Formats: sequence, structure tokens, C-alpha cells
Amino acid sequence: MKAVIASIAPDANVIDISHDVPPQSILAGQRLLRASVPYFPAGSLLLAVVDPGVGTSRRPMALRSGEHTFIGPDNGLFTPWLDAGQAVELTAPEYRLPNISSTFHGRDIFAPAAAHLAIGLPLRKLGPPIANPVRLSPPEPRLHADGTIEGEIVYVDRFGNLITNLAGLAEGTIGCAGRELPVRRTYGDAAPGELLALTGSDGELEIAVRNGSAADVLRVQAGQPVTWRP
Amino acid sequence: MKAVIASIAPDANVIDISHDVPPQSILAGQRLLRASVPYFPAGSLLLAVVDPGVGTSRRPMALRSGEHTFIGPDNGLFTPWLDAGQAVELTAPEYRLPNISSTFHGRDIFAPAAAHLAIGLPLRKLGPPIANPVRLSPPEPRLHADGTIEGEIVYVDRFGNLITNLAGLAEGTIGCAGRELPVRRTYGDAAPGELLALTGSDGELEIAVRNGSAADVLRVQAGQPVTWRP
Amino acid sequence: MKAVIASIAPDANVIDISHDVPPQSILAGQRLLRASVPYFPAGSLLLAVVDPGVGTSRRPMALRSGEHTFIGPDNGLFTPWLDAGQAVELTAPEYRLPNISSTFHGRDIFAPAAAHLAIGLPLRKLGPPIANPVRLSPPEPRLHADGTIEGEIVYVDRFGNLITNLAGLAEGTIGCAGRELPVRRTYGDAAPGELLALTGSDGELEIAVRNGSAADVLRVQAGQPVTWRP
Repeated sequence: MKAVIASIAPDANVIDISHDVPPQSILAGQRLLRASVPYFPAGSLLLAVVDPGVGTSRRPMALRSGEHTFIGPDNGLFTPWLDAGQAVELTAPEYRLPNISSTFHGRDIFAPAAAHLAIGLPLRKLGPPIANPVRLSPPEPRLHADGTIEGEIVYVDRFGNLITNLAGLAEGTIGCAGRELPVRRTYGDAAPGELLALTGSDGELEIAVRNGSAADVLRVQAGQPVTWRP
Repeated sequence: MKAVIASIAPDANVIDISHDVPPQSILAGQRLLRASVPYFPAGSLLLAVVDPGVGTSRRPMALRSGEHTFIGPDNGLFTPWLDAGQAVELTAPEYRLPNISSTFHGRDIFAPAAAHLAIGLPLRKLGPPIANPVRLSPPEPRLHADGTIEGEIVYVDRFGNLITNLAGLAEGTIGCAGRELPVRRTYGDAAPGELLALTGSDGELEIAVRNGSAADVLRVQAGQPVTWRP
Repeated sequence: MKAVIASIAPDANVIDISHDVPPQSILAGQRLLRASVPYFPAGSLLLAVVDPGVGTSRRPMALRSGEHTFIGPDNGLFTPWLDAGQAVELTAPEYRLPNISSTFHGRDIFAPAAAHLAIGLPLRKLGPPIANPVRLSPPEPRLHADGTIEGEIVYVDRFGNLITNLAGLAEGTIGCAGRELPVRRTYGDAAPGELLALTGSDGELEIAVRNGSAADVLRVQAGQPVTWRP
């Protein structure tokens, strides 16, 4: 993909966000984009490929939304930016590679589209508008009458921190896998090896072990329910 | 290696192809180069280090072939480009680092050579021609009288797809580890979790599981025989 | 972090040294910097984040030392460059992001500081001097009266090579996990699959298996004692 981009837009500054999205996990890719996009300069092109439907009828897409443009599969990956956005299907053959494989549209369709946008091609030249792009959203937390909130682990990062779908909760406790953990401000508020909950770098409540891996200690994975108590 | 390149050729645009070639696997590196090189712009310098013989008498090499130049060990890694190419041994001390380690010629010999080529050094300045470069080729498929073709798994990618040394076979079935799988056009032609065979992004027949890992399901690795039946 | 840098210093040439430092291992990060820094051009900015104390009172720091500038936590990571250096605490709010998380100072404090230095900001503008930066040093080898030297494994690389804290020993034997291995010059001096010791690319004695993984064969990890005999 980078070779294709360099062939079309040799001066493009290419930044890798991550190669560690679990295969096929559209929501994990979406979450990573939500955490990263606000830090990119205006005018950035965000090319993302989490693409279990590659080679099927799922549409290849470019989406302009606010100051950013997204390029990738129309499978819900870019849902948070759809409402304010304008989407086109990547059909124009002159902005694709000559041969399109069934399994690697990142190289054959998305990279050439992004590179042509980088050198100034107007979005509408890439293909016709998409009126009804696919939407996909993470599970919503549920608020109960007793003031507790039910959520779940949505992501396990490479340090073994367990990121939940709960945000804006600076106090209370969180229950997970039979343990009840206090919500703290920072890793340093726990003893080394102690489990704690805290607000992570993207605003979500996460479960961590100071100088260790919460995933190893609790032996849980994405999808595990958690309960916050005030 | 990138620091060495930046010291000599600060404006070079450096692209990482992969850091996931299995250690010592010259043929896996060669296969990755074959899949990648056609997408690089004319004039690209391809520096590759799969180098089990580092520190022995194996020669360090630069090879100009068509529009590309390859830099790395003379151990067969660049065999597909040898016939049309012109090779030199990297002996000129002024284009190496002052101290040469026994274990990291990527940093001490290959990176400085590539960087000097990037800023315009003629190839012949790097050292004398190599007349008989080392050659290494992947196993050839065998065609039998009954129309079947025997091949093998040559690579397992990070998604668990099993790439074979068979190409140009859009129909029929492929047998592997006691299973007989139909050759399909795309992942979407199989049910989620189903094993299938299809032509991958580099033209080779591969065995995959839709939304899963064929390596996990079949528990096979590189070297496993496969048989195609018409 | 790279998006933050691109927003402030779009022309900066960003090089990744490694993402494989074991979590929380300040000394492994320090060792990697010691091996890499000499190869960077004069004027380079070295941003490093191995930061178990993030969110506590540990100070964020920039350190100018010789021709290089280091940016990261004041936790001993940069000890080898302290004596010749001038350190400041990163307190100036105009060179941080507006919101500082408790867990990701790499993005919120270090990346903006490095990017502002890259576009010419004088070091002293980032904050007040640090008089007593934190120091941390690797274990020293012990020389015994009988001429043997005791050391330990300090790092296991991705090939399974075991790097020790012993250097400058081109002969003799090294004992590890009940095995006694000759010190050789290069991998090629051993048979395939044979254990050997040799001086690695950063000058340290390491234990390796030709075409294999010493970590797998010996089943040892960082901290394992080794003894060199003349």
C-alpha cells in the first residue's frame, strides 16, 4: 500500500496508526480511529482497512467529514463521521490499479484513491455518492434504576489493560469477573501489582494492574460484562 | 539502519515492507519481495536483510535489475532479479560504517550502501562485479499424468491464511491435511467459519477460513503438501 | 503521537526505533537507546516513553546532551547522557496539549515538546532546569579473584538471542544454565542448531543458536546469571 501511495503521491507523509487491530474486528478499528482522529491535522486523509467483506458486494468508499477524509470499506468502520459527511463509492477505474484482486482492496483500490486525493483530486471524481452507507455502533451501556451502569470490555490493549465502554465516571467502583475495584485517578494510586480502574487516555474507564497485565490477572477478554456502582 | 540512512540521505523516503519474515527464511523473504516490488516506483532501492550467513564469507551485494536496485546478502534472496541484473560486491570501505560488526551488516554495510545510492552514487563505485551470485528457488509444483498437481504450503500469513506454490488455478478442488476444499472466487462465497481455497492478492492459491484462521483449523505449517484436482 | 508531531512540525522526519521494549522495563529501553543513539545524525531529537510512573509526580523532561536532545520521563531512562547534559522539566502549558491525560504523556506532553524543539524552540522555553534528575543503571558485572566474571542476561531479542551485560571478551567460555559455551567470532563458526557465544552488534557478549533461538533451547530469561571463564 505504501509503495502504491509513493508511486502516485511521492511527497505524502504517511503515518501508521496501528497494525494491531484484531482481524475482522470493525468495532475495534472504529474505536482506534475515534481515539486518533482528533489528533490529526486538518486535511488529513485517514485510510483504514478492517475488511471482512473484501471481494464481496460491499462498496469501497471515501468519506469527507469536517476537516478529515476517510478511505476504506463501507462496512460501518466510519460510522461516527457519517452524519456530518459526504460519501462516494470508489468506482472510477482511472483511480484504481489496473488489476483488482479479490482479497486486497487496500492496495488495489483504497491506496490509489487516497494518493490521488493527496495530490489534489476532488472527492467527487472518485465515483457516485453513496446515499445509505452501512452503520455499525458499539454496545451502549445500560443505566439501571439503582444507579448502577452495566457495560462491557470492548478492547484489550497490548499492555493487558481492559478498556470498557463506560466513560465520564471518575468515582465509584467497577465490578468485573467477581472482583470489585475502586476507580482511581492514576496508576500511581495503586500498589505495584494491584488491580485498579481509572480513566484511560481516550476518556474511557479501563481496568489495569500497576506494572502488570489486567488481562493476565483476570483472564477476561473483549465482551466480558462490567458493572459500575456509584 | 534508519538512523544510518538519515545520516547519509536525510531526504530519503523510507518504507517498511515487513518485519515479519520468519527468522532465517530466505525463501519467505524472496516471496515477499516478489509480491511487493512491482508496486514500487521506478528507481526504488530495495534493501532486504534475511541473512543467516552474516559474519561468514557470504558476500554483501547490490544488484541493479530493470528499474530497481536491490541491496542485501548474496544468499539467493534476490534470485528472481538476477538474470536481468548487474551485481557488485559491497567492498568499498568509504561506503561502509567505520566498524563492521559480525552480526548486523544491515546497519553497517547495507544501509550505508543504500543511502549512498539514494544520493546518487553510481553502482560500480560500491565494489567489483559479482560474476556468479548465489541462487535459491522455491519448490516447483509437480504435474501428474492424471491431471492433478502436487504443491505445498510456502507461507502462513498473519491472518492464518495458508499460501501455496500453486498459481493460475481458478477452479477445481485442493486437498490439504485430509480435507478437500473447493476453489472459490472470494471469501464471501463461503459461510463464516468455513474453509475454502481462493486466489490470493499475489496470484497464488491459498487456503483460508472466512473470518478465521486456516492455520488454527488445519494445524499445518509451511512445507505441508497440497494436491490440486481439476 | 505521530499525529501530534505532524500537526506541529509537518516536515519532521520521524523514525521508529522500536515498539518491542518489554512494558515498564526502563533498563531495556535505556539499553536500546545506548545501542541506537550513536547512529543518529547530530541534532536528532530522541523521544522515548518507557513510563511506569505516568500520572504520578515523576517529572516530564527534556535533556540536551552533546549533539542530541532526549525527551521523556525523568525516571532514569536517559541516565547515560545526564552527566554531560542540561535537563529541563516540561511545565510550560503552551507546549503541551490542552488536556493532559493521566496515562499517555507520550501524546500529551512529550510529542508536543519534541515537535516544538524540531521547529526551533529553545530548550529553556519548555520549563525550569532539573537539578537532580533520577538515575538508574544496569547491574555491573563482578570480577572474581580467579579471573572469572559474573554477569547476567539483560535482554532477549526477537530472534531469541540472549544479550548479557559482559563486553570486551572475545575469547574464553561462558557458562549459562548448566552449559559451558565457547566464545566465537561469528554465527558461521558454529554448526546449525549449535549453541555459541559471540560479541553482538552492540559490543556485548550474547548467547545464540545458529539458525535458531537460544531462549527456546536454554529456557532462560532476563536476570539469568552467566559466568565468563578465561
